[in-house]
This record gives sequence, structure tokens and C-alpha cells, in this order.
Amino acid sequence: MSTRIEVIEDILDVNKQKAASNREIFDQSSVFTINLMASPGAGKTSLIELTIKQLSHRISIAVIDGDIATSLDADRAAAAGAKAVQINTGGGCHLDAMMIEHALKELSLNEVDLLIIENVGNLICPAGFPLGTHKNILIASTPEGDDKPYKYPTMYNGVDALIINKIDLLPYVSFNMDYFRQGVELLNPGLEAFPMSCQTQEGLELWIQWIIAQVENNQKRLLIDNN
Amino acid sequence: MSTRIEVIEDILDVNKQKAASNREIFDQSSVFTINLMASPGAGKTSLIELTIKQLSHRISIAVIDGDIATSLDADRAAAAGAKAVQINTGGGCHLDAMMIEHALKELSLNEVDLLIIENVGNLICPAGFPLGTHKNILIASTPEGDDKPYKYPTMYNGVDALIINKIDLLPYVSFNMDYFRQGVELLNPGLEAFPMSCQTQEGLELWIQWIIAQVENNQKRLLIDNN
Repeated sequence: MSTRIEVIEDILDVNKQKAASNREIFDQSSVFTINLMASPGAGKTSLIELTIKQLSHRISIAVIDGDIATSLDADRAAAAGAKAVQINTGGGCHLDAMMIEHALKELSLNEVDLLIIENVGNLICPAGFPLGTHKNILIASTPEGDDKPYKYPTMYNGVDALIINKIDLLPYVSFNMDYFRQGVELLNPGLEAFPMSCQTQEGLELWIQWIIAQVENNQKRLLIDNN
Repeated sequence: MSTRIEVIEDILDVNKQKAASNREIFDQSSVFTINLMASPGAGKTSLIELTIKQLSHRISIAVIDGDIATSLDADRAAAAGAKAVQINTGGGCHLDAMMIEHALKELSLNEVDLLIIENVGNLICPAGFPLGTHKNILIASTPEGDDKPYKYPTMYNGVDALIINKIDLLPYVSFNMDYFRQGVELLNPGLEAFPMSCQTQEGLELWIQWIIAQVENNQKRLLIDNN
């Protein structure tokens, strides 16, 4: 059993080092990066499609898509107008920093303003493997139920922003927004949240404004750091 | 890297042996067992509640609930009228056969007809760790989207029955039932499926009849085997 624990610690250490070196690469190329995590079907790919459609005339966007099989998600991102790279984990339940380092070789990062990494659909394992991105973002969706912060605390605790998707389904599902938000507040006080519907596009505008501000602030920060 | 692979193989081997010994325990006690798997929020706990409410006057039901944190699900199963044991994996992304062996000590299995094991909400990792149950059952839910069989083939490939939950939401979500079923058929030809809504209880009756038949057939099989 001790062998197993040592091996796992070793894997996490290597991941941490690679995440730091990924971050250096992102900053050298002035690209703002997010790691988008969620359960299967919460709306990661739909949000990425909408973000590309709204923003690709203003900024250059690339997507790295993580899935255990198929290139369905990367195909959707590419069809929406972004440069897209698919990582198939071959059964693996999360992306790790080494996979991202490898995928970056497929992108001309200097020509990219925003890199969105779509993690494997999983509310548990991705939380343990930072990728080096500037922000970790979680999508919750109302049909999943309002108890998810309480049941998946590591994920909710570790993210920098929260999208609450599928608010158009609120009349048809059992979801108490106050109970949900109390759970979030308990784990991650003051967490910025964006209630929205990718279906109706209600609430999308605030997310788009936030992303633009993040991309611009990142570029300003790097200019200051380099002067 | 070879150390890592050997350790993982070792873990899977131990799990397989423990699963076989769990199965022997189940059969000695004439208890029919299912391993219920799904994404977070697909409706595992709701289905368990309904199954207990419909059946607890006819058969004796116990539940083992796996979660990474809290006892919310076991509390719901207990409130519905079953003996319930909670396993908190402390961050672990799936149940394994060793955890079940341990949890069985909390149950008087000889007094149980049906044991439902609610796995951790995860469409990936639980597929790799059989628990020794008679049937592995997956719940899909319509708001997750119709592409899930294609994207999570290992899970869809390895189950013995499929519940398609939240059909009451079909008018409000983008879900092509034919495309979904084609994916299922590709991976698991002839898989028995139960479209239903835990919210409206549409379709529930066929599931209840199936469970009763499974429990009865299991008891008959064991009587014949022992004579």
C-alpha cells in the first residue's frame, strides 16, 4: 500500500511542475487560459461554441478538448470558428498538465488571445490535476440538482468562477437556488457566479464581458511585468 | 512509469478477487444486488427512493450509498424506508469491491432480498471497478445530451440495463432519442432500456416489474443450484 501512495504523490508532483511550466508558456505568449470543468452534459461544449461565436471577431480563440473517446467536441469547436485540438485520454478520467504540454505543440500560441481547455466530463478527478491555466471554471447545471456543492466539495472549493447553466429549465426541475448558493458560499465564499442558459442565451452577455475583461487584464499585467 | 502500471494492475486484480468473494456472500444470503451508476444528478437517489417506496411492503431492501462526502443520499434512502449504509470515499472517484466488503459488515444480509449499491456520481471510473453485484445498471438523463454513449463508451459497454431518466424534460432539451439509442445499440446490442421520469413516475412501473422478476429469478436460481 505504501508503494501505491508514493507513486500517486510522485504523479501529483510531476503534474504540479508541468502545470507551472505550462503557465510560463501561456504568459510568454500573452494568452489567457481557462480550464473548464463539469459533469457530463452540463454544457461545456455549448458554452465554448457560444463564446467562440460571440468573440471570434474580436479576439483569437483556441480550444483543447479532452475526452475519453471521439473528437465530437473538438469538431464542434472547430465548426464554431476556433483552432481546436482533441486529446483522447483513452479511458483516463481527467486531463493532466503533461497532456496539455503535448497538445500545446499543435497550436501557434503567439497568435492566440484566449485558450479554453475543456476537461473530461467529471466532477471529481479533474480537481486534483491543475493544468497551469489562469482560471479554473466550473459549470453546474440545474437538472443536476441543488445538492452538488455539498456532495462534490473539492471541485466547488477549487474553482475561480462558476457558471450555473440551464436556468431555462428551472420551472421544470427541482432546484432550490438559495440552498445551492448557500453550499457554494460555504465552500468558496464570494465566488463569482454566472447564471445562464446556453439554450436561450439568457445571462450569456455577463460571461462574455467577464472573459473580455480577463483577457485584457492579463495582457496589461504581462506588459507591466515585462517593463 | 512501469512501477505505476504494475501498481494499477495489482489494484485491479485485488478488486476482481474481492468482487468474486462479495458475489459469494450475496449468493449465500440469497440477496439480489445491483450496482447503480450515473453522472452526478442523473437521478440515482431519486430512483432508489421510488423503488423503496414501491417495493418495501413486498421485499426487504438495503442500500449502500457511495459519495465523496456527506451522508445526504443514505439519509434519503433511510427516510424512504430502507436500511442504509453510507460509504464516504474521502475524495475517491468510485466505489471498489473492498469498500463493499467492509460495508456489508453493517448489514444483516440474510434479512435482505434486494441490495442496491449507489456508486459515486461519475460516468468513467466506476466502470473499471466491478463490485460483485449481479447487475450493473446505468442511469442516463435527457438533459445530459444524446451524445453520451459515444463519449463514454466503456460505461455504456459494460452495463446490463439502462434507465433513461427525465423523459419529462424532452420537450425542453435538445435530445434526439434515435441518435442516443443508435449509440447504445452500437456499444451494447440489445441492452434492456427503461425510459422513465422519476419526477412524474412515467415508465416507473416497468422498472419495478423488472426488479421484482430479477429478485424472484435469483432466489429460484439459488434454490436449484443448492439442490
